Amino acid sequence: MPHAALTQTSYGKSRIRLVRVTRHGDPSTSSGSSRATSRGDRHELRDFTVAIAFEGSYDTSYTEGDNRDVLPTDTMKNTVYALAAREGVGEPEGFGLLLGRHFIERNPKLTRVNVDLIDHLWGGITVGDREHGRAFVRRGPDTRTARVVTDRDGAAITAGIAGLVIMKTAHSAFEGYPRDEFTTLPETNDRLFATSMTATWTYTDGEIEFASTFRTVRQTLLEAFAEHDSLSVQHTLYAMGQSVLDSIDVVQSISLEMPNRHHLPIDLTRLGLENRNEVFVATDEPHGLIKATLSR
Amino acid sequence: MPHAALTQTSYGKSRIRLVRVTRHGDPSTSSGSSRATSRGDRHELRDFTVAIAFEGSYDTSYTEGDNRDVLPTDTMKNTVYALAAREGVGEPEGFGLLLGRHFIERNPKLTRVNVDLIDHLWGGITVGDREHGRAFVRRGPDTRTARVVTDRDGAAITAGIAGLVIMKTAHSAFEGYPRDEFTTLPETNDRLFATSMTATWTYTDGEIEFASTFRTVRQTLLEAFAEHDSLSVQHTLYAMGQSVLDSIDVVQSISLEMPNRHHLPIDLTRLGLENRNEVFVATDEPHGLIKATLSR
Amino acid sequence: MPHAALTQTSYGKSRIRLVRVTRHGDPSTSSGSSRATSRGDRHELRDFTVAIAFEGSYDTSYTEGDNRDVLPTDTMKNTVYALAAREGVGEPEGFGLLLGRHFIERNPKLTRVNVDLIDHLWGGITVGDREHGRAFVRRGPDTRTARVVTDRDGAAITAGIAGLVIMKTAHSAFEGYPRDEFTTLPETNDRLFATSMTATWTYTDGEIEFASTFRTVRQTLLEAFAEHDSLSVQHTLYAMGQSVLDSIDVVQSISLEMPNRHHLPIDLTRLGLENRNEVFVATDEPHGLIKATLSR
Amino acid sequence: MPHAALTQTSYGKSRIRLVRVTRHGDPSTSSGSSRATSRGDRHELRDFTVAIAFEGSYDTSYTEGDNRDVLPTDTMKNTVYALAAREGVGEPEGFGLLLGRHFIERNPKLTRVNVDLIDHLWGGITVGDREHGRAFVRRGPDTRTARVVTDRDGAAITAGIAGLVIMKTAHSAFEGYPRDEFTTLPETNDRLFATSMTATWTYTDGEIEFASTFRTVRQTLLEAFAEHDSLSVQHTLYAMGQSVLDSIDVVQSISLEMPNRHHLPIDLTRLGLENRNEVFVATDEPHGLIKATLSR
Repeated sequence: MPHAALTQTSYGKSRIRLVRVTRHGDPSTSSGSSRATSRGDRHELRDFTVAIAFEGSYDTSYTEGDNRDVLPTDTMKNTVYALAAREGVGEPEGFGLLLGRHFIERNPKLTRVNVDLIDHLWGGITVGDREHGRAFVRRGPDTRTARVVTDRDGAAITAGIAGLVIMKTAHSAFEGYPRDEFTTLPETNDRLFATSMTATWTYTDGEIEFASTFRTVRQTLLEAFAEHDSLSVQHTLYAMGQSVLDSIDVVQSISLEMPNRHHLPIDLTRLGLENRNEVFVATDEPHGLIKATLSR
Repeated sequence: MPHAALTQTSYGKSRIRLVRVTRHGDPSTSSGSSRATSRGDRHELRDFTVAIAFEGSYDTSYTEGDNRDVLPTDTMKNTVYALAAREGVGEPEGFGLLLGRHFIERNPKLTRVNVDLIDHLWGGITVGDREHGRAFVRRGPDTRTARVVTDRDGAAITAGIAGLVIMKTAHSAFEGYPRDEFTTLPETNDRLFATSMTATWTYTDGEIEFASTFRTVRQTLLEAFAEHDSLSVQHTLYAMGQSVLDSIDVVQSISLEMPNRHHLPIDLTRLGLENRNEVFVATDEPHGLIKATLSR
Repeated sequence: MPHAALTQTSYGKSRIRLVRVTRHGDPSTSSGSSRATSRGDRHELRDFTVAIAFEGSYDTSYTEGDNRDVLPTDTMKNTVYALAAREGVGEPEGFGLLLGRHFIERNPKLTRVNVDLIDHLWGGITVGDREHGRAFVRRGPDTRTARVVTDRDGAAITAGIAGLVIMKTAHSAFEGYPRDEFTTLPETNDRLFATSMTATWTYTDGEIEFASTFRTVRQTLLEAFAEHDSLSVQHTLYAMGQSVLDSIDVVQSISLEMPNRHHLPIDLTRLGLENRNEVFVATDEPHGLIKATLSR
Repeated sequence: MPHAALTQTSYGKSRIRLVRVTRHGDPSTSSGSSRATSRGDRHELRDFTVAIAFEGSYDTSYTEGDNRDVLPTDTMKNTVYALAAREGVGEPEGFGLLLGRHFIERNPKLTRVNVDLIDHLWGGITVGDREHGRAFVRRGPDTRTARVVTDRDGAAITAGIAGLVIMKTAHSAFEGYPRDEFTTLPETNDRLFATSMTATWTYTDGEIEFASTFRTVRQTLLEAFAEHDSLSVQHTLYAMGQSVLDSIDVVQSISLEMPNRHHLPIDLTRLGLENRNEVFVATDEPHGLIKATLSR
């Protein structure tokens, strides 16, 4: 029986959970009882979920069970923790680059390594009017993301934001669409528009300030969403992407995914009441799903 | 064959999703194109998930299929939307009271009605330095909750907060516990302490400002968590509850649930490195689970 | 400031994942290459999620951070694995009894220990017409459950089944209910009836065959559901519980929870078609929720 | 400001829940009371989740908000229900073809339509030794899937199975892999091997019996998994795919995804016990993730 051809393979480790604490400040002035030994007054917290996927010349591991070149996925996981300890983590893009370079340099059969990172966001807890420094509260539901793809020629970075739940309660219409015998949707010039947005973007060449650019992209998307006079989800999605490309030079292209989380006005006439576009049922099944990529 | 005794029954409707928009401001000054018809400059958004459960003299509906007194759960759902339209929703506690009274007054066989509300929190999107007014972003992951139990004698209110994810990176120890032949946990005076806290509290009699009290309880819990010199999860849970009872007179009792989301230090010695209490794996399975109720 | 009173406390470990393999048969006849060292031809697989909760005289651990009597939840977890290795696991009820006795005997401040077990069900993979013996496929989505509550006087066992998803496509009606100004539900004598049932039951005194009784209860519930001429969810829930009490002497009481996963007929008239009660949208939000306990 | 280029777009409706009942048999012999009006003795149940995505010349809907060619996603949903009523649903592949053809014929700007279907599997409830015919129990956790991509030239079908949870307790090794300073994994020739497998496959040209082929592929995958003397997840994944290509002529290529749900042996030596490869902790975070496509 002839062997089947392997036309695509990938292997790696997913959902590696990494929390890295960095302690800043003069340990001698650290507040607290003698019991507490944590150094420093001001702690920095990074909380990542990392996935690593190897692509390369690994066919005999599939066909023959030859593991000679198969770096164990357990070692991939250990490497994440080792590099986090030795080098620190910083921004997700930088940590992804560090991991990608490490793996590509040491694994001769490796052609391409994908590192996907989710950056779970925390804010400092404030006590009175100052930040406590060593206590945190999770911000969400949205997360920051990064994907770094490294091969023998270099690395490509995609930054992103996932699960940003937003709603506008005015200036959203959907009219003028084609009708057929299965159309029942009423036209509207005043609907709720809610979505859980995912965006990913690439950068032009050169030095990028990853953290501040992320914040600027996020705020630009929020403002464009708020201000847009929407004729459809597609229309607003485009305006949001366009706004990022217009105002942030280092962004080369941006992809947006916007599920339309329909908020349906309740028909209150059967209950003897009027719905002045004020009472809605929120649904997530089914949902529209709109996607596009915009490039310079 | 004798009938089995019904020793407990309950029926109702769960996961009723309600979004209520209230439009404030002078419509004539509303910004935006002529297309948009939404009135007002400043919109208010409430986003609730409601569950209603009836307890009462409904045994024959079980034993005989006699539906004469069984208000359909579909009607319960409609009532939520109808009262939201007619009366507005306001705070979750107030809307729960409204619903409870409505049902208890109209259903003679009803002994007790439980209304559970989840208040999904949204913040206004800011454009430049002002709030846009008609666009919102979901804040989370924590939610505000309320439970209103209404019977023929009145109503009991429980307010709460669910899924508040918090972490402290200093002043957390666990030492001095008993050891047996199955003990392997090392004692520590400097561990990470992370939890997804759920709290519920009851009120003393009298007028309560639900919204401002909720904010005060939340902030008090955060500050007590940050400032506590923790000897265990139990110890900090108690300090947090005590802090609420100490500083907020209208709270009668408070229940706290704190899963211990273990953050385990990675053993880097086998990797030829030192872990200076900086690199951790975040886990949620298994987790400790600590609960207590504190009363005045 | 006076201390708050602790009116209820509990602490323990949740979501302890345990897989126990037992290898039966003559190792010398074990098939397979010399590489494989697993003994025996026929393996037995148990896959449990265990939660342990302690209640007792632990107030000073909350109020003072005094850990002298606080068996670490990490030790609870280790104990699960140690007893599974030393004693085997068998049925979930038996393993829960073993754990409960172990903890109550060794912890003087412990008043009551709750052990909750989820038994994830696997079936053997068949090759040709025989069971392979050492390969398994998960059966679900339903799971078997057990709760064992042990105190100084003995133990109480509750067995159960969770997440049994069932549907009947005939003999389900809902009519004759009260109507008010918010009623819009049409009466029907031919609807779909779907639920994800959870049942728990207690036993009369005496020796119980846990495994075979579980199978008999499950089959009795399925048959009663299929055969019932349903006038409401309540009506069928009762018939199912009654059927268990009628036919299985060792069951003392049974509690059933049945969310009504509404399957709504699509209104096809607006699409120029007729729906002869054949096309439905399945929903799970909102859902009815019906509960009852039946006792001898 | 120049418009950004749209380099990729897609829009559609996801998570359309469809349940279709077909009633067979002579209504006059239907059992049950006069109340029940459902026709036929033997009902057939199909339970699909459908997603539809349009790709085509829709750029002005993004750039200008021009909806003239934008078939509403609500109409897509209605079309699913209308065709299900008018034509029946049958196998998921056939229903996907029907939907694809419908949309491509009626929408001039549409270049390609993707229809993804999840077939939720139900079995008949048996009463005594016969199938009841009108009552069902969900089988899982695995589901059957299909993807149909239709363009102006025809349609391409991909069938699949998702979430098949399987475990082998013998004949699984992982040895001979490269080691570096971050390697801590011990070599083993006797580990547990568990996964939640997803497979998708394409067909050669010609008439395919979709339902029976699905069952044959599923059983072939299960048997190959059980019988394989595994040197790694990669090795077994390949053997499973190869076995399908070897024995089922109509399959052209097959893609497999196998997360390695690690079952880690508990170190019992610190508890004074021996683990004879019998006691494991089941984990799903982190997990290995192995993928490959095999083609003739």
